[in-house]
Amino acid sequence: MSGTAKVLILNGPNLNLLGEREPDIYGHETLADIEARCKDNGRNLGLDVDFRQSNLEGELVNWIQEARKGFDGIIINPAAFTHTSVALLDALLASEKPVIEVHLSNIHRREEFRHNSYVSKAATGVICGLGSQGYDLALQAMARLVE
Amino acid sequence: MSGTAKVLILNGPNLNLLGEREPDIYGHETLADIEARCKDNGRNLGLDVDFRQSNLEGELVNWIQEARKGFDGIIINPAAFTHTSVALLDALLASEKPVIEVHLSNIHRREEFRHNSYVSKAATGVICGLGSQGYDLALQAMARLVE
Amino acid sequence: MSGTAKVLILNGPNLNLLGEREPDIYGHETLADIEARCKDNGRNLGLDVDFRQSNLEGELVNWIQEARKGFDGIIINPAAFTHTSVALLDALLASEKPVIEVHLSNIHRREEFRHNSYVSKAATGVICGLGSQGYDLALQAMARLVE
Amino acid sequence: MSGTAKVLILNGPNLNLLGEREPDIYGHETLADIEARCKDNGRNLGLDVDFRQSNLEGELVNWIQEARKGFDGIIINPAAFTHTSVALLDALLASEKPVIEVHLSNIHRREEFRHNSYVSKAATGVICGLGSQGYDLALQAMARLVE
Amino acid sequence: MSGTAKVLILNGPNLNLLGEREPDIYGHETLADIEARCKDNGRNLGLDVDFRQSNLEGELVNWIQEARKGFDGIIINPAAFTHTSVALLDALLASEKPVIEVHLSNIHRREEFRHNSYVSKAATGVICGLGSQGYDLALQAMARLVE
Amino acid sequence: MSGTAKVLILNGPNLNLLGEREPDIYGHETLADIEARCKDNGRNLGLDVDFRQSNLEGELVNWIQEARKGFDGIIINPAAFTHTSVALLDALLASEKPVIEVHLSNIHRREEFRHNSYVSKAATGVICGLGSQGYDLALQAMARLVE
Amino acid sequence: MSGTAKVLILNGPNLNLLGEREPDIYGHETLADIEARCKDNGRNLGLDVDFRQSNLEGELVNWIQEARKGFDGIIINPAAFTHTSVALLDALLASEKPVIEVHLSNIHRREEFRHNSYVSKAATGVICGLGSQGYDLALQAMARLVE
Amino acid sequence: MSGTAKVLILNGPNLNLLGEREPDIYGHETLADIEARCKDNGRNLGLDVDFRQSNLEGELVNWIQEARKGFDGIIINPAAFTHTSVALLDALLASEKPVIEVHLSNIHRREEFRHNSYVSKAATGVICGLGSQGYDLALQAMARLVE
Amino acid sequence: MSGTAKVLILNGPNLNLLGEREPDIYGHETLADIEARCKDNGRNLGLDVDFRQSNLEGELVNWIQEARKGFDGIIINPAAFTHTSVALLDALLASEKPVIEVHLSNIHRREEFRHNSYVSKAATGVICGLGSQGYDLALQAMARLVE
Amino acid sequence: MSGTAKVLILNGPNLNLLGEREPDIYGHETLADIEARCKDNGRNLGLDVDFRQSNLEGELVNWIQEARKGFDGIIINPAAFTHTSVALLDALLASEKPVIEVHLSNIHRREEFRHNSYVSKAATGVICGLGSQGYDLALQAMARLVE
Amino acid sequence: MSGTAKVLILNGPNLNLLGEREPDIYGHETLADIEARCKDNGRNLGLDVDFRQSNLEGELVNWIQEARKGFDGIIINPAAFTHTSVALLDALLASEKPVIEVHLSNIHRREEFRHNSYVSKAATGVICGLGSQGYDLALQAMARLVE
Amino acid sequence: MSGTAKVLILNGPNLNLLGEREPDIYGHETLADIEARCKDNGRNLGLDVDFRQSNLEGELVNWIQEARKGFDGIIINPAAFTHTSVALLDALLASEKPVIEVHLSNIHRREEFRHNSYVSKAATGVICGLGSQGYDLALQAMARLVE
Repeated sequence: MSGTAKVLILNGPNLNLLGEREPDIYGHETLADIEARCKDNGRNLGLDVDFRQSNLEGELVNWIQEARKGFDGIIINPAAFTHTSVALLDALLASEKPVIEVHLSNIHRREEFRHNSYVSKAATGVICGLGSQGYDLALQAMARLVE
Repeated sequence: MSGTAKVLILNGPNLNLLGEREPDIYGHETLADIEARCKDNGRNLGLDVDFRQSNLEGELVNWIQEARKGFDGIIINPAAFTHTSVALLDALLASEKPVIEVHLSNIHRREEFRHNSYVSKAATGVICGLGSQGYDLALQAMARLVE
Repeated sequence: MSGTAKVLILNGPNLNLLGEREPDIYGHETLADIEARCKDNGRNLGLDVDFRQSNLEGELVNWIQEARKGFDGIIINPAAFTHTSVALLDALLASEKPVIEVHLSNIHRREEFRHNSYVSKAATGVICGLGSQGYDLALQAMARLVE
Repeated sequence: MSGTAKVLILNGPNLNLLGEREPDIYGHETLADIEARCKDNGRNLGLDVDFRQSNLEGELVNWIQEARKGFDGIIINPAAFTHTSVALLDALLASEKPVIEVHLSNIHRREEFRHNSYVSKAATGVICGLGSQGYDLALQAMARLVE
Repeated sequence: MSGTAKVLILNGPNLNLLGEREPDIYGHETLADIEARCKDNGRNLGLDVDFRQSNLEGELVNWIQEARKGFDGIIINPAAFTHTSVALLDALLASEKPVIEVHLSNIHRREEFRHNSYVSKAATGVICGLGSQGYDLALQAMARLVE
Repeated sequence: MSGTAKVLILNGPNLNLLGEREPDIYGHETLADIEARCKDNGRNLGLDVDFRQSNLEGELVNWIQEARKGFDGIIINPAAFTHTSVALLDALLASEKPVIEVHLSNIHRREEFRHNSYVSKAATGVICGLGSQGYDLALQAMARLVE
Repeated sequence: MSGTAKVLILNGPNLNLLGEREPDIYGHETLADIEARCKDNGRNLGLDVDFRQSNLEGELVNWIQEARKGFDGIIINPAAFTHTSVALLDALLASEKPVIEVHLSNIHRREEFRHNSYVSKAATGVICGLGSQGYDLALQAMARLVE
Repeated sequence: MSGTAKVLILNGPNLNLLGEREPDIYGHETLADIEARCKDNGRNLGLDVDFRQSNLEGELVNWIQEARKGFDGIIINPAAFTHTSVALLDALLASEKPVIEVHLSNIHRREEFRHNSYVSKAATGVICGLGSQGYDLALQAMARLVE
Repeated sequence: MSGTAKVLILNGPNLNLLGEREPDIYGHETLADIEARCKDNGRNLGLDVDFRQSNLEGELVNWIQEARKGFDGIIINPAAFTHTSVALLDALLASEKPVIEVHLSNIHRREEFRHNSYVSKAATGVICGLGSQGYDLALQAMARLVE
Repeated sequence: MSGTAKVLILNGPNLNLLGEREPDIYGHETLADIEARCKDNGRNLGLDVDFRQSNLEGELVNWIQEARKGFDGIIINPAAFTHTSVALLDALLASEKPVIEVHLSNIHRREEFRHNSYVSKAATGVICGLGSQGYDLALQAMARLVE
Repeated sequence: MSGTAKVLILNGPNLNLLGEREPDIYGHETLADIEARCKDNGRNLGLDVDFRQSNLEGELVNWIQEARKGFDGIIINPAAFTHTSVALLDALLASEKPVIEVHLSNIHRREEFRHNSYVSKAATGVICGLGSQGYDLALQAMARLVE
Repeated sequence: MSGTAKVLILNGPNLNLLGEREPDIYGHETLADIEARCKDNGRNLGLDVDFRQSNLEGELVNWIQEARKGFDGIIINPAAFTHTSVALLDALLASEKPVIEVHLSNIHRREEFRHNSYVSKAATGVICGLGSQGYDLALQAMARLVE
């Protein structure tokens, strides 16, 4: 691929509260901290990172659709939509891009209803339980996928 | 019913990608092609067709509520919301209008989680697996239902 | 396809009672009324319609097998066999013809055990809940499928 | 707590149709009627009531997040989102405020899929089946919880 | 009801083997013995008894349909079809006659798959586990139902 | 068996309300009416009938234990305990007497949770859906079982 | 309704231990404290309150039956019987009185087996998780229901 | 056993299409080919082979009943009836003959609903996935069973 | 603990029949035999044993409540209530005493519905399948638990 | 295939006890008897048979891996590992050899947990319930598969 | 039985860590401590105790097979294999010896997947939740079983 | 932590076939390639890497136990044992070390039975679907966890 690859990083509902909400589970970093680090990491990896958050499922769907044209890969932390959104799944399937799903916590150690992920059915890979470092690792993996 | 009956045709998430996304499953027509044909067909059947798409569940709910006053029937292709939206179901139940559910593909031959439809619990009839012709057939059926 | 396409319309158990049995669910038309209309519609669509009913699963299987040679498409209202007959499913799969499944009522609003359809696994499309008009719409769809 | 406590009352999808939709289940009062009474009741209980409705899950999530700073308690009638929204659950968990869930009808006597509530997993208390009086009782209970 | 009431007694698959097959479960009487006794009992109760057996589901469906016109009540021992035939259920529902279901053995003490009965959903009453006396008791109950 | 056989007829919770409670389901006869008829019928069949009712599971267990010594057979309408009482099941199993289970209504046409019967696992036979005549038929069957 | 309405408040097993047992879940008030407050509240609402507790399901059934004649409404905290007693459900259905179910804790946040309530199938309304204030709110709601 | 043992080989619905239908799953041999080979093999093994096919469940039941008298063993490929026919199961249980169940394909690698076999509950042995050779192997095994 | 520890041994429904009922499963000893041996064993272990049986769930609940004050540990053979009584579970949880659950037979080798135990959720330990010796072993274990 | 084909016959846990353990289910032959007969049969079929048994899942996995290089086909009686070993399934899938699964008994007539086979998902064919003759038949089938 | 009876005590995976691993659940004793005490206890009971531990399922199977000849009874703490090993179950069934299953913790109060035990299906008795004293009690019970 | 941290990388059954087995799913690299790269990466991250593979569950358990003393963290690709081994889960829980679970493929897009992971219940984090790069990312994450 010639030129700098573009990666869209999407964050689902309530992740804007990061650093405030249940810090024992999710850590003290804010989403802005993570965004800054992702952009830095992206630069080092030769990736142009666009980082967004929404509490609206439909807005995330719109952004994923947008990625069909303007982006080379998608990293998504779907948060609560992980378990309930077939619309995100369909948008990701339609994107025809590599997709990496990230979760801050290990969803398999939480409540039963958090074990199923619709998004995983469209994801190339999944990283969970490694806190915000999951984003860093996902960017590295994406760098290779978009080569 | 005196005057021209009005029919609201609603399309759920990702249907705006029609013609691009997974064409072996969904065909090559765009949603604009279908809209044009539906309006033509509507004219022939004496129906005034309003055709809309949204990726936001809440916007679809708003439009269904609007139909309580201004429309005589609803045709809906709920796409991914078929399987997850009780809010659409409740809006359709509250609409007190005839409802026809349309799916381009035969959802019963796809993944298990696509077999259940909340929308069917509020639908007069369901048409699936007949591609975009399903809209044409739904309009014919609606023409009779709103007589 | 040269010449007139031939369509086999099959009706499952108890449909011979149509017009008598539970008219609030199934309407007042008799099966003979529907047959007459289907033949008329067929003529208009350039389709030669053969219309049959049986209470025996095995007879329906025989007829579907017959369709492998002499017919271009199958429309089937499997009635009670919808939910219990793998033999019909296998016959339809073996027919290698387009298949449209029709139900007079919306089976998804009836008892739980009527929600599953073996026949849908072999059907191109499904139309339900639109009363006997479902046959008319199925014929139109079949006209296109056998083109 | 010094000063007047502030309570946010949230209403989910289709509740704006109250008084019109299925009155045998939901009664004839409109949502505006309930809002007026809640504000009156709030004044008597020394509570400052903010009353909102949305058909968009994301907008409700935004409002709950807002309550983290500006409100002392949340009363929520999540309507259809009760059964499908993990995003609301997560927002309520993150709010770290007392939460009372209200339903006009007794959801345990309705369809099976309405028996599960994600919101209950974050609620202090639940009141259902007592019509719009449920809001009045919830306000009384909230008055004590925010003391 | 003036004149002698007519009762149709139907027996499902393999009941023609009665007296030969697994006598510890089903007893030593033959079906002909039971038929003779039922006719005698019928005469005493003022009922005209027609007694039939078939191994074909469709033939049983035909006979039930016939009962819509010529009979006042149906007693049925559906044997293996109890657990698998929606077609029998639909035919019985369409018959609009009182129906009593009889089983020689107590199906609830046998294998799990014999616990569910589709026929029970159309039956006025069910008698099981009382051997061939179940037919006698069913005739008495039918005598009252057709009064 | 020399002398008159003794039959214990037991009635579970709320059956003392018979004739008052939900008469469309249970009929207008009172339990006293049924008792009187059972005693009459018993006399004709050469059976000495003892007829009791209790709302206490433990009292019914005591009575069944008592039947081990003083009675030749048990007829039981366990009402609500049908679906919940393993203690009744164990007592009946321990009784080593013939047991006939009676239900006024056809429990298989009522709510799902009323379909399972623990008592059936200990019953020789089951009669349901035939109203209070079920007691009469049970007595006849018991007369033969205790011969 | 002329005269003072009478309300029966029933308490299920182990509630006599209130104030001693697991106070983090159930609070420090005793059942006698609650009874006293309910009687006071009743007086203010023009309701004559009879307040009882039993560890015997059958005794609670008896009391509910008694309410058919002598009371205008029933408030019940069924405690452990909530999840296991069809007999209480049937008694409440037979009572033909308004019923409000109260739980001190939010049963939906406790073990899975505490999520199902048979009693809810007979209840007009349910209040849970609001501690002993739930009784106060139930009385207010009952005051309106018996008007 | 003196004289030549007689073996009945039964084939269920749609097997008459063998060689035409889905040859990647079922191979190119016709049922007549298999019949010829079975008769040859039978001669070599000293078995008199009778080979039949039917699309009617009831006809298969009749043939199995016939085997009670005139045959020493039954080989059956129940095809679609494998998964749905309790009537075949009961007939085989009643036959009191050794039964070998044959499937051309490995049903455990096909759709979920093809994994359960009612017929296996009456079979001595089962052979599947070995194509038409399964019949040859079954005959060998039967030769030993009928010795 | 100074003085003699007091242990309450409780026995559930139908255990009073021990020695009579199904001796192949439960042995020939009577409950009085076991009581005598338990008292002897208790003396040797320095435990004061109180031994009771009831067929009434509520009576067992009362006795467990009594143990909160007057006893140091509870041994319980809940028999049929094992599988159905949340009330016993709650009483045991409230007792705040060590609890040992005993079953004469190995409940895990009996019917499926006997595999679940509510009582186990409150028990320190469980002993099953070792006949009446289970009581002896439980007393030894209790002796250590109350030290 | 030139030269003698090599077949690996593997036997899972406890099969070394054959002839001793539960002979009514498994027969009196020892595994050594079967091995001898398999080698004889192999010679007649032009197959070089290697016959092994292990109680260690990992050893069986090692042997299957070995077969990738040195063998042309695998016959396996996985015994208890049938139902629990995904490792065997993966090894067999990786072997890229024809696989025939053999069971001495008909596992579909035994306990529920013995009905599922992971190994069947990798097997070409399955033979069960025909005792040790199953090995002979499997060798014949393998002779054809490795041709 | 003449001479000293021999008892094999087997310990499953990770029990060699006893005293180190999660001491709040499993206590501070080491497995060597328990072995020593078991041997002492065995001597007092006239039992010759052989005590072993393995992390390999197959090794445990081998040891159980060995017990068929050289031992009179088996006590087994299968640890993690409790829930997953059909091979252990089969070996124990084949041993034809009395088997007592021991668990240090009460497995019914731990995670859902620890509630099922394959080993219990072969065990005479089960003791759980009583810590290492469970071994002592098992030895006593075994002493009587091997008499 | 002073000195170089030691990381144990464990690989489950069949991973020794990597590069040979089903390369479309697992890629062409061999396990030796991955080992080499892990050791290199380890050096760069200041981690001493020990890399092992076994087809025996018990050997993996032994190695995890060994890690309690000699290692600072565990990375494990449990392969088939992921879905079946409670013994691995218990060993990992007992290790009291950070654990990262790696899968080459995205197990959530494979067969249903591969969706559940016992190992995830003990893992800090999980990485799947990113091929052998998953090991590299796991090492990076481990470097931070052992800091």
